[in-house]
Amino acid sequence: MQVPAGDLLKRIVDPSDLKQFKEEELKQVCNELRQYIIDVVSVNGGHFAASLGTVELTVALQYVLNTPYDQLVWDVGHQAYGHKILTGRREQFHTNRIHNGISGFPKRSESVYDTFGVGHSSTSISAALGMAVASQYKGETDRQHVAVIGDGAMTAGLAFEALNHAGIENSNILVILNDNNMSIDPNVGALKEYLTDITTSKPYNRFRDDIATVLTKLSAIGPDAFKIAKKIEKSIKGTLLKRSNFFEALKFRYFGPIDGHDVEHLVKVLKDLRDIPGPKLLHCVTVKGKGYALAEKDQTKWHAPGLFDKITGEIKKTKYDKPQPPKYQDVFGHTIIELAEANPKIMGITPAMPSGSSLNLMMKAMPNRAFDVGIAEQHAVTFSAGLATQGLVPFCNIYSSFMQRAYDQVIHDVAIQKLNVVFCLDRAGIAGADGPTHHGAYDLAFMRCIPNITVSAPMNEEELRNLMYTAQLENMGPFSIRYPRGNGVMVDWRKPFKAIPVGKGRKICDGEDVAIVSIGAIGNEVVKATAQLNDLGYYPAHYDLRFVKPLDAAMLHEVFSKFGCVITVEDGCIEGGMGTALLEFMADNKYLGTNVIRLGIPDAIIEHGEQPELWAECGYDAAAIVAKVQSLDIKCNKHTIAS
Amino acid sequence: MQVPAGDLLKRIVDPSDLKQFKEEELKQVCNELRQYIIDVVSVNGGHFAASLGTVELTVALQYVLNTPYDQLVWDVGHQAYGHKILTGRREQFHTNRIHNGISGFPKRSESVYDTFGVGHSSTSISAALGMAVASQYKGETDRQHVAVIGDGAMTAGLAFEALNHAGIENSNILVILNDNNMSIDPNVGALKEYLTDITTSKPYNRFRDDIATVLTKLSAIGPDAFKIAKKIEKSIKGTLLKRSNFFEALKFRYFGPIDGHDVEHLVKVLKDLRDIPGPKLLHCVTVKGKGYALAEKDQTKWHAPGLFDKITGEIKKTKYDKPQPPKYQDVFGHTIIELAEANPKIMGITPAMPSGSSLNLMMKAMPNRAFDVGIAEQHAVTFSAGLATQGLVPFCNIYSSFMQRAYDQVIHDVAIQKLNVVFCLDRAGIAGADGPTHHGAYDLAFMRCIPNITVSAPMNEEELRNLMYTAQLENMGPFSIRYPRGNGVMVDWRKPFKAIPVGKGRKICDGEDVAIVSIGAIGNEVVKATAQLNDLGYYPAHYDLRFVKPLDAAMLHEVFSKFGCVITVEDGCIEGGMGTALLEFMADNKYLGTNVIRLGIPDAIIEHGEQPELWAECGYDAAAIVAKVQSLDIKCNKHTIAS
Repeated sequence: MQVPAGDLLKRIVDPSDLKQFKEEELKQVCNELRQYIIDVVSVNGGHFAASLGTVELTVALQYVLNTPYDQLVWDVGHQAYGHKILTGRREQFHTNRIHNGISGFPKRSESVYDTFGVGHSSTSISAALGMAVASQYKGETDRQHVAVIGDGAMTAGLAFEALNHAGIENSNILVILNDNNMSIDPNVGALKEYLTDITTSKPYNRFRDDIATVLTKLSAIGPDAFKIAKKIEKSIKGTLLKRSNFFEALKFRYFGPIDGHDVEHLVKVLKDLRDIPGPKLLHCVTVKGKGYALAEKDQTKWHAPGLFDKITGEIKKTKYDKPQPPKYQDVFGHTIIELAEANPKIMGITPAMPSGSSLNLMMKAMPNRAFDVGIAEQHAVTFSAGLATQGLVPFCNIYSSFMQRAYDQVIHDVAIQKLNVVFCLDRAGIAGADGPTHHGAYDLAFMRCIPNITVSAPMNEEELRNLMYTAQLENMGPFSIRYPRGNGVMVDWRKPFKAIPVGKGRKICDGEDVAIVSIGAIGNEVVKATAQLNDLGYYPAHYDLRFVKPLDAAMLHEVFSKFGCVITVEDGCIEGGMGTALLEFMADNKYLGTNVIRLGIPDAIIEHGEQPELWAECGYDAAAIVAKVQSLDIKCNKHTIAS
Repeated sequence: MQVPAGDLLKRIVDPSDLKQFKEEELKQVCNELRQYIIDVVSVNGGHFAASLGTVELTVALQYVLNTPYDQLVWDVGHQAYGHKILTGRREQFHTNRIHNGISGFPKRSESVYDTFGVGHSSTSISAALGMAVASQYKGETDRQHVAVIGDGAMTAGLAFEALNHAGIENSNILVILNDNNMSIDPNVGALKEYLTDITTSKPYNRFRDDIATVLTKLSAIGPDAFKIAKKIEKSIKGTLLKRSNFFEALKFRYFGPIDGHDVEHLVKVLKDLRDIPGPKLLHCVTVKGKGYALAEKDQTKWHAPGLFDKITGEIKKTKYDKPQPPKYQDVFGHTIIELAEANPKIMGITPAMPSGSSLNLMMKAMPNRAFDVGIAEQHAVTFSAGLATQGLVPFCNIYSSFMQRAYDQVIHDVAIQKLNVVFCLDRAGIAGADGPTHHGAYDLAFMRCIPNITVSAPMNEEELRNLMYTAQLENMGPFSIRYPRGNGVMVDWRKPFKAIPVGKGRKICDGEDVAIVSIGAIGNEVVKATAQLNDLGYYPAHYDLRFVKPLDAAMLHEVFSKFGCVITVEDGCIEGGMGTALLEFMADNKYLGTNVIRLGIPDAIIEHGEQPELWAECGYDAAAIVAKVQSLDIKCNKHTIAS
């Protein structure tokens, strides 16, 4: 839904228009930009609080920099709505995150102002350094390169690796630390505490206390000594905050902390910094959700609240007549507590996704057994491996696409050592509106080539519970369970636990001539499809494979013995995925002559949209499966089940 | 070859024996341990300089700690030979890195003293923290957890993520920073410079200069003021070095720097630290190669020198009558310079492997175009992506198994954005004596499921050159080239460049009934096999696929039309690899009925050994291929070529 923009904002088509305003008008521009974000997001949805926190920063940067010649890289991109609005996309902004609309993240193909595509965190310093080194090489000495990165994103190893390199390149790079104390959930870790220390001047205070005694004595000597004491204090303050700072240790010139909501001051500081060569860091303190009181108060809830009444703050919930199935995330969150209550070995680990994964439930119920380790997928896995060496059973919950960040740790630290770490891969398959960076497309392919690991996916909430139960039994070794974003299919999901034999699939229904083998929750589309097909007089069999590794040999022998045509359905890439695993089984067991049709995410980058839209686009929703079976010119058509 | 140990060393079967010695005898133990490492490695080979640098640290740790109850994690493991010798493996040490001998790295299945398997760097703090948190949870308050990590390994993001988490857990963890200024090559980056600053007290010196004036003035006031000035100086020194230190910022208590070769002092310090709870870091300054003068002088050369005369230091080279083929690494190193001379867009990037990858040649020849970014694979890839956004063509050289560390960056920062980054995956396939952590087993599987990327492998040096040439042509997008460790097959390899059409394979020889399709240098085993088979009267065809993505459809249509049996050969995992890609092609193109036999690394962890030994073990060396063809009960036998 389109909404009107304020008077000043209306005049800004691109940053050159912004530059026409006087500095004292920028505050009004910020107000209108903030209001516009509130107006549009409240009725169209999207990420909310992060962009409210960077309104002044966005306006100041576009006012001072000469974009797109100067290069501005936003980390993650949740906070870049203002950037999009000021760089030619105000009129399209209401299509944000909608299928065929603009992306929720900066995206190179969308705008020349989007210098680097993002979505995952902590890439901005590396990318901006690459740009800065390129400029240096080309002799573009006047070109500015700015990375805006949150304090949460700064905890990821990639950001540190980039700082460590940038500190010794004499490139023109400015890192703006957008310090709001938050990831999606509150930021955690030593660095966060350090930043809080800096902004409240604690190191200086502590130091001052230490030498307070000597300075007091000194002052007692006389007025000259008192003056000198003051001078010393000033020098110490300057040095402590400037020279001995964490970022100064990494050879960055450190500036700040400054108020990230004072747009005129920001403009002044950014202009000053423009002329200082080499790596530098500006520490801006901002408030996530700034200017919308409810969001300032509960920043996690307002990270991406969905639609809401901007006046009352009431978040619009869909009303249902009857109880609905829970989200898979919630099933995970409640189930791990049940399991942990019975098994003292179980621990929970999340890299900065307590609320997204629902591990926050366990963190609250069992604070000594559940850990948010920050945006640090690599560490999350190796830390879990360390726990597992001591006989504990860590459940390490990482979104499928973020697990790409910890791939080596899965192989090197867990699988080679056969450690009993349970990977819960949330948001597996098409992730929806977050788009290509967040689709969990590849995990079945990249996990199943690793030795020693069990790779599974539940078709519904009960199966998720039972797989989690199974994974924590004795000596299970590395165990991966993938499940999608969003709601399940069972209202009555909290059933007693039952162990599932590892590598055992299940037959959902018998059939003739065509077998459909699915893995995971997308199997429910197959269930819908078979029902529709039955009405049309087609009777395919349906098998839920459950495990991509190890494969259910007995079940697959049945499938390949009985059926001349096998359709595989997975919510994951078809190159190397589950369907491919079946081709390997078929070849290894000499089932020559079976026609195998693999449905899944094709070999292409899938853009954003609702999950069902994208399943349809990729050709594996119920309708596509029905059409596929109908299109087959084989006997299966119109036969009745022979059992 | 077994060699005798010194008198004291002989008496040490496990650490309890070491504890029987008096502190003043430890120096002699160190001397004997060092000599034993020199004696054994000089005649058996292996990593050398790193373990010489940690002799005193190893002895002191085992003397003070109560291992294996106390837990000691060595990072990377190149430096853990002394550890192995003192923990029950002195007599086996001569089998180090030999097939069926002990591993060159700590390995859990080898010894209870090996708390965590390593090989890749920077895992130790995460793993030790996991152990420490487990102890805390179990109430084992007396248990010590120590991670020994080099300053090189400290540059990797994983180490930083672990520090950031450890700083806020109140666990009993001691990180020992083994600061020798080296990775395999000299360590680089801002942190390294910072550590040098600390050890030479530069921050303090600079600070002192700053306030020198005021203190001088102060002293002039009188003797009381002078005393106070001294006191201030002392307080400042203490505070600056303790409170404002990089590690203190991350909430670690920092101790040091201390001399890592003074064993008695180390013992004293470690005893003191034992009683201090919470996260702490001991900064030890050591010399890589300590005690072997030549190694101290050229630490990169002596990282793993091969066999040498321990008296003269002469490194034993195999003598050949005629010129030998070069290593693939050297071909890469020379070729990138040739290409870069012609194409100013080309840049070179290595994460801490300048000599291993031979990028050191370009770093020397074109210092502004070749970058060692430290042990930082993630950053290496995203930095390359940043360069590529500016129209440059970065060649990012990363060992196959280390590329697992940057998987998300390949997908998220390069492939989704279709950036023209060239990945050169060195050490792809079986890596040899380094074993399971270093085998480049999975890259074909994990790369080929990514959209937008070209995945290739040359069969010989000329092909490597031509693929590199092809990859830097206009608009190639993401391009991956994998090649193995070790020597090629062509003496006369420096041929003029020829572009290779992307996705175009080549027929090596025609044949009948059986086609062998290979990818990469292992194709030379197929060449040997076909020659032997021809002598035996078998005439298989041989195709070099060259590209796993995109596939050569025309060539594969020929293969599947003509041959009822196809054998695929790859130096990579068979789950999801090249052979599997052919199964997908076959299924998608309805070549039902072809018997496809996939040879490659089986679904298991392959231990260490020489490459040919392991190819044989995995069943894809020439002999195994011959045997496989002979075992086929198909017409191909004894036929002549119909062409």
